[in-house]
Amino acid sequence: MKRRDFIGAIAGATATTAMTACGQKDEPKTAAMQPMETVEWKMVTTWPKNFPGLGTGANRVAELINEMSGGRLHVKVYGAGEMVGAFEVFDAVSRGNAQLGHAGAYYWKGKVPASVFFSSVPFGLTPDEMNAWLYYGDGLKLWEEAYKPFGLIPNPAGNSGTQMGGWFNKEINSVADLKGLKMRMPGLGGEVLKKAGGVPVSLPGGDIFPSMESGALDATEWVGPYNDLAFGIYRAAKYYYTPGWHEPGTTMECMINEEAFNALPADLQSIVRNAMKVANLEMLSEYMARNQQALQTLVEKHNVELRYFPDSVLKELKKLSAEVIEEAAAEDALSTKVWASQKAFKEQVSKWTNVSELAFLNARNL
Amino acid sequence: MKRRDFIGAIAGATATTAMTACGQKDEPKTAAMQPMETVEWKMVTTWPKNFPGLGTGANRVAELINEMSGGRLHVKVYGAGEMVGAFEVFDAVSRGNAQLGHAGAYYWKGKVPASVFFSSVPFGLTPDEMNAWLYYGDGLKLWEEAYKPFGLIPNPAGNSGTQMGGWFNKEINSVADLKGLKMRMPGLGGEVLKKAGGVPVSLPGGDIFPSMESGALDATEWVGPYNDLAFGIYRAAKYYYTPGWHEPGTTMECMINEEAFNALPADLQSIVRNAMKVANLEMLSEYMARNQQALQTLVEKHNVELRYFPDSVLKELKKLSAEVIEEAAAEDALSTKVWASQKAFKEQVSKWTNVSELAFLNARNL
Repeated sequence: MKRRDFIGAIAGATATTAMTACGQKDEPKTAAMQPMETVEWKMVTTWPKNFPGLGTGANRVAELINEMSGGRLHVKVYGAGEMVGAFEVFDAVSRGNAQLGHAGAYYWKGKVPASVFFSSVPFGLTPDEMNAWLYYGDGLKLWEEAYKPFGLIPNPAGNSGTQMGGWFNKEINSVADLKGLKMRMPGLGGEVLKKAGGVPVSLPGGDIFPSMESGALDATEWVGPYNDLAFGIYRAAKYYYTPGWHEPGTTMECMINEEAFNALPADLQSIVRNAMKVANLEMLSEYMARNQQALQTLVEKHNVELRYFPDSVLKELKKLSAEVIEEAAAEDALSTKVWASQKAFKEQVSKWTNVSELAFLNARNL
Repeated sequence: MKRRDFIGAIAGATATTAMTACGQKDEPKTAAMQPMETVEWKMVTTWPKNFPGLGTGANRVAELINEMSGGRLHVKVYGAGEMVGAFEVFDAVSRGNAQLGHAGAYYWKGKVPASVFFSSVPFGLTPDEMNAWLYYGDGLKLWEEAYKPFGLIPNPAGNSGTQMGGWFNKEINSVADLKGLKMRMPGLGGEVLKKAGGVPVSLPGGDIFPSMESGALDATEWVGPYNDLAFGIYRAAKYYYTPGWHEPGTTMECMINEEAFNALPADLQSIVRNAMKVANLEMLSEYMARNQQALQTLVEKHNVELRYFPDSVLKELKKLSAEVIEEAAAEDALSTKVWASQKAFKEQVSKWTNVSELAFLNARNL
């Protein structure tokens, strides 16, 4: 029974009457009654259980829901492989085996071509710009349209911040240096790498270090210093490149099984949605706070060499990215619509970022 | 009575028993009972009622609380002057005349010297860096310490993004051009202006345009294009300068009367706290989405001239800012502690911003 129906059922009976009839002594005089719901939900994730930033970000969504609902909605979190494999999250939530799924949308580009535009696009939006498009542009509305056929409701639920460009064992002085490189790189970034002659590989985070160590991978990107340090990637690669041209501000998602969501009363629906907004803010703040410490550890303790991609390489990657994005946008009608929206938004918002934050950062560095 | 006590009082009685005793038919079999609270709270604000971004941001905190609590906690919002004047918000919430107050912390520097460090500091933290310091550094903990003697609990509840440098009727080609200038500029930015020979004036937003029009002010800053357009400041000034060196990412606050907060059950406390986090994220996203459109309107429709402060001016202002900040930090022991924390955090986090987001923005602009 939904709470709304229940409240309807007791309409007319004042709380005091109800309470007195129940034989309680210390009841509040004016309180109406509502049922204490104890809905149990499962959350599956693409991250190793409790993995810093990502796994803990998924945990936070659950904690926030548990806390704000006073336990009426209880969420239990499963790490990758505990209930389903990392890349089975989408299907598990779509089928209703779990009610929530914490992931990155670009993992589903085989099922939903447009999904790549909801995580991060090469040379695309920064984290704050991405949130602006999602919440105050058409972003989230279009994302909902994309997941609707699967019985899923998408939500932004975290952001990694601007990522790093990746780990290499040789210097990248020209795009030719990417030729033949087997590199872990998901989403559109991987397609750009392919166009540059590289071999993109899609792997869950937990498989990266073993693959680098065994030589199955020549290079890899993952997230940024905080996460990359945790995986120990520095033990298998020497150069750490910036900027993360391929993922300038990656949105993490928490998808909801639509049927389960619709069965919730309005207050719990609002709590679920807003828990994800809180988690979105918190994850970005956490990465911002932790990355520099981790970068320092990598450079000073583990002798990692920090490198900037040369402008000539970035220019070429930007050209290839534009081609890849246009191809992705042509995959189906929805992708075309989503990219048209994001592209127009980017053209506008990036001007403001240049006038405001970029001008400020340059002034701060004077 | 607190919910916890109430739940204690009915411990042992199963929900089904309680419900049957109340004579209800359609009751859920497993639901426990909790009282439907109907706490009424007032929120006073320093903004004109419904003012875009700021006033509507305050409204959002209220809406989110109302929605997530299912109406158990109902917040009514009062614009500046409706219940108390803009600059009486702090005292009103401290005294308990209102339970919430939406404002900018630097308005209270006369009462709490350290408060200037919790809004925005000249050449200081960007919005994302500020959130990182508040939530994952010592920022919020120190802010709580600062407001504790007044019976107030502070919360970040919005961010304007990097602001604009202000409106002038003459070009600013050297710091000497600021001499004698009567300019609306609150907080530490105002102190820097004073050191540069200007005359800082603190005025609530609603008084800015009339003062510019009458000539009582020579220049003013307010927020950014979206808000400045709404106040029509372009009708009284010709040049619009960037960057907002004095407010690189201003945190708005929503303070809570501590006694009222402590009387809430744990789930409502969590809802109140997290509503403010959601509002924090939403406000920044909204400004990010709206500022460029407004800037375009200002430039193209109202013939405003967009100007960048010359590097020489910014360098000088940065030097004066460092002096002003050290003076502010010396005002009392708490200010010293707060600035030591923020300064150390800034030194660390700004390196990461340079390596990640700044490097990316430069690449995107290639």
